[in-house]
Amino acid sequence: MARRPRSQEEFREDLFQSIQEFCRYKAEDNEEWKSFAQHFEYKSLDINNVEGFHELHDQTVQLEEKFHIPGNRLFYLALAPELFGSVSYNLQKGGMLDSAGWNRLVIEKPFGYDLESAKTLNEQIREVFKEEEIYRIDHYLGKEMVQNIEVIRFANAFFEPLWNNKHISNIQITLSETVGVEERGGYYDHAGALRDMGQNHMLQMLTMIAMEPPSRLLPEDIRDEKVKVLRSLRPYATSEEVEKNVVRGQYVKGNARGRELPAYREEDKVNPESNTETYFAARLFVDNFRWAGVPFYIRTGKRLPVKTTEIVVEFQGMPNNVYLGQKHKLEPNLLVIRVNPMEGIYVKINAKKPGSESEIEPLAMDFCQSCMVGINSPEAYERLLHDAARGESTYFTRWDEVASAWSFVDKIAEAWAQNPADHAEYPAGSWGPKKADEMLAAGGHHWWPVSGQDEDSVVWQVNK
Amino acid sequence: MARRPRSQEEFREDLFQSIQEFCRYKAEDNEEWKSFAQHFEYKSLDINNVEGFHELHDQTVQLEEKFHIPGNRLFYLALAPELFGSVSYNLQKGGMLDSAGWNRLVIEKPFGYDLESAKTLNEQIREVFKEEEIYRIDHYLGKEMVQNIEVIRFANAFFEPLWNNKHISNIQITLSETVGVEERGGYYDHAGALRDMGQNHMLQMLTMIAMEPPSRLLPEDIRDEKVKVLRSLRPYATSEEVEKNVVRGQYVKGNARGRELPAYREEDKVNPESNTETYFAARLFVDNFRWAGVPFYIRTGKRLPVKTTEIVVEFQGMPNNVYLGQKHKLEPNLLVIRVNPMEGIYVKINAKKPGSESEIEPLAMDFCQSCMVGINSPEAYERLLHDAARGESTYFTRWDEVASAWSFVDKIAEAWAQNPADHAEYPAGSWGPKKADEMLAAGGHHWWPVSGQDEDSVVWQVNK
Repeated sequence: MARRPRSQEEFREDLFQSIQEFCRYKAEDNEEWKSFAQHFEYKSLDINNVEGFHELHDQTVQLEEKFHIPGNRLFYLALAPELFGSVSYNLQKGGMLDSAGWNRLVIEKPFGYDLESAKTLNEQIREVFKEEEIYRIDHYLGKEMVQNIEVIRFANAFFEPLWNNKHISNIQITLSETVGVEERGGYYDHAGALRDMGQNHMLQMLTMIAMEPPSRLLPEDIRDEKVKVLRSLRPYATSEEVEKNVVRGQYVKGNARGRELPAYREEDKVNPESNTETYFAARLFVDNFRWAGVPFYIRTGKRLPVKTTEIVVEFQGMPNNVYLGQKHKLEPNLLVIRVNPMEGIYVKINAKKPGSESEIEPLAMDFCQSCMVGINSPEAYERLLHDAARGESTYFTRWDEVASAWSFVDKIAEAWAQNPADHAEYPAGSWGPKKADEMLAAGGHHWWPVSGQDEDSVVWQVNK
Repeated sequence: MARRPRSQEEFREDLFQSIQEFCRYKAEDNEEWKSFAQHFEYKSLDINNVEGFHELHDQTVQLEEKFHIPGNRLFYLALAPELFGSVSYNLQKGGMLDSAGWNRLVIEKPFGYDLESAKTLNEQIREVFKEEEIYRIDHYLGKEMVQNIEVIRFANAFFEPLWNNKHISNIQITLSETVGVEERGGYYDHAGALRDMGQNHMLQMLTMIAMEPPSRLLPEDIRDEKVKVLRSLRPYATSEEVEKNVVRGQYVKGNARGRELPAYREEDKVNPESNTETYFAARLFVDNFRWAGVPFYIRTGKRLPVKTTEIVVEFQGMPNNVYLGQKHKLEPNLLVIRVNPMEGIYVKINAKKPGSESEIEPLAMDFCQSCMVGINSPEAYERLLHDAARGESTYFTRWDEVASAWSFVDKIAEAWAQNPADHAEYPAGSWGPKKADEMLAAGGHHWWPVSGQDEDSVVWQVNK
């Protein structure tokens, strides 16, 4: 559905073109395709007009009869969040929810702008749908390597005993983008990096890493544990604490790979005096027995030097006055989970420098999944829509997760609002404000290079 | 030195040819080479004739004067062990040990045939040399990846906490050869696999894996710990225990890669009724707190399907009634140290099967050192002779190590001697007697495939 009128033929032609452009498997313009395309129908709809929903209902019933579908209905809404409520209401009023089968609602981010607006939005939806019928998409949860986190943690005797503050020094989650705001300037200038990435993707990845083993690997049990992590996040009590633990930045003019890049304030549809953050980094603590004292560093930003999502688990260093540590600078061991665009995991350990007498160098034991030929990881959306259709809700965010995340993030946003112009600047194409490096240095840590950055100090096999 | 006469020119020509044939760096026949070759002199010597040693002394003093060498002398003996004593005595009697510098004796294996003969041999040598002057070569200790074991163990926070019976299920050391006895039939038929490989290389690798962290990474401290491991080896108290824990085999006619292979008894210089073992496998226990209950499986043999030396550390399995273990067969995690001919290490973990919805498969995070271009690992002998020249004795076996190893091995040999013909047969080109598989199966274990064997169940990157 959309507002503008289109014929079924035009719609199916668009569908065909989209498949050719975006899909892993292409369609062929033959009888099989024509028959398959009959399952897709378009409806021009004014979402404020209930009459249109009645028509939609009739059209749906016809389709169900034609294809012998027992009335199961999955509604996918990609809309401005303030419209979710009224559309849900009209779906109900138009009779769309009166069917013999199930009804499920899949909604796109953003789920609100803060806890208050998210609550309102949720209440509106909940007047129509039950919590277990609502599938809030966070497409990072659909990514192969994010889903792999629970397998890595819970299917390997190797990692489980080390997964705590006795053995882990700190954890770093980076979600860096090279793009600016593109055509999303209007939305982005209103949201900023904290709301656009932090409240959802970054906190979700953090919960996957930090959660306790659930009682069962079932959706509710897993989400119970994830929400416990969010509740254990140490809230920033004052603006000073936010200042100390969170860095915000906005990109100014810069360049990357010989290309001049404009400042954020010069971007299309962005307020020329905008104070919106295009970068933020934060130091978080999960105050429970497992993670007491272990900083979780997260950072995300636009116009950074490489596009990557990576989780680095840094293990405790070896004592530097014992054995090899006396003569050599021993790097700490790392477990790195590469989420995007490379998929894989590697472990960095210390070993003899190949061929040397007694030099020690870090080397990477690597498994690069995306280097493999013939592997077609399903797209995140492919997985998630399939999950929703079969009622598997593990990788969707439950309301209490959303609420806890907003509640944590609101503290930061409120502190920032007191001094809106107090953000650091960073040149487009750089790794963000210096303050983010200083924040880690204060704890004796540093950001580990992510893929694409210099890793000269690590021995990689050269056949990669 | 050797018995047959050769001129200095002939000797240096042989030297040049050997370098061209065997060395990592070639020589060029130019002035530089000619000047370098002057450092090499040959002497024809009857080792029973002291007069020759006096001549050798004069020749040595001349060389030292010519090249301004302060009298440091390294003697390298590759001889039948029963000659070590008399040669040492003649070196002394001929005045070779009267110099202003140090004297060191490097001796090749085998160091005796059993504890008794090794003791005699040692006493003879010790009449001339002090223990700290004696460098007993076990060339496996010169191998890159064997030396890497201590770095991997003591420079990585990742492995140290797991290195005990709480986390390790069993350890497997394989040293397999594809060759038969070649031109060494006479020696080998007298020695057998247990003495040729077990008493030295295999027990040495075991001590590197099993030793406690030493007080310092200095030669005596490391060897103190290694000898403790040998002393903690549970001795086989009876022939029945040997029967239960040690498997011996001899190869019969077989074939490999389409080639017919003769039986051991048909090999050159081998007794046609020989009962010598060409294969043995054993289950050993290190009775200390760290390793209580962890079997160390070792195996070695001739005419096996691949040539490889590998150490597999198998970690405890995940409980099979928890989480993913309920629906999936989870393989235990492995740490594999590839010693020869491939050099590298890899870790086998469980992860999502790439691109699948929820299948779990083992995958290998790999660092293949020998795959790297431009890495020139020094040969084991290169390292060891260099070590001896600089007085670094870590990777040489001390007398108490040799004695403990013989004392353990003698128990096996004695039990076998009671039923000399009671060995199992295995076809040349196979993985040895079935009994060796059954021995592991009795403990719920199995031999892990070593390089070159099918590893179809493991996901490797295909670009390897």
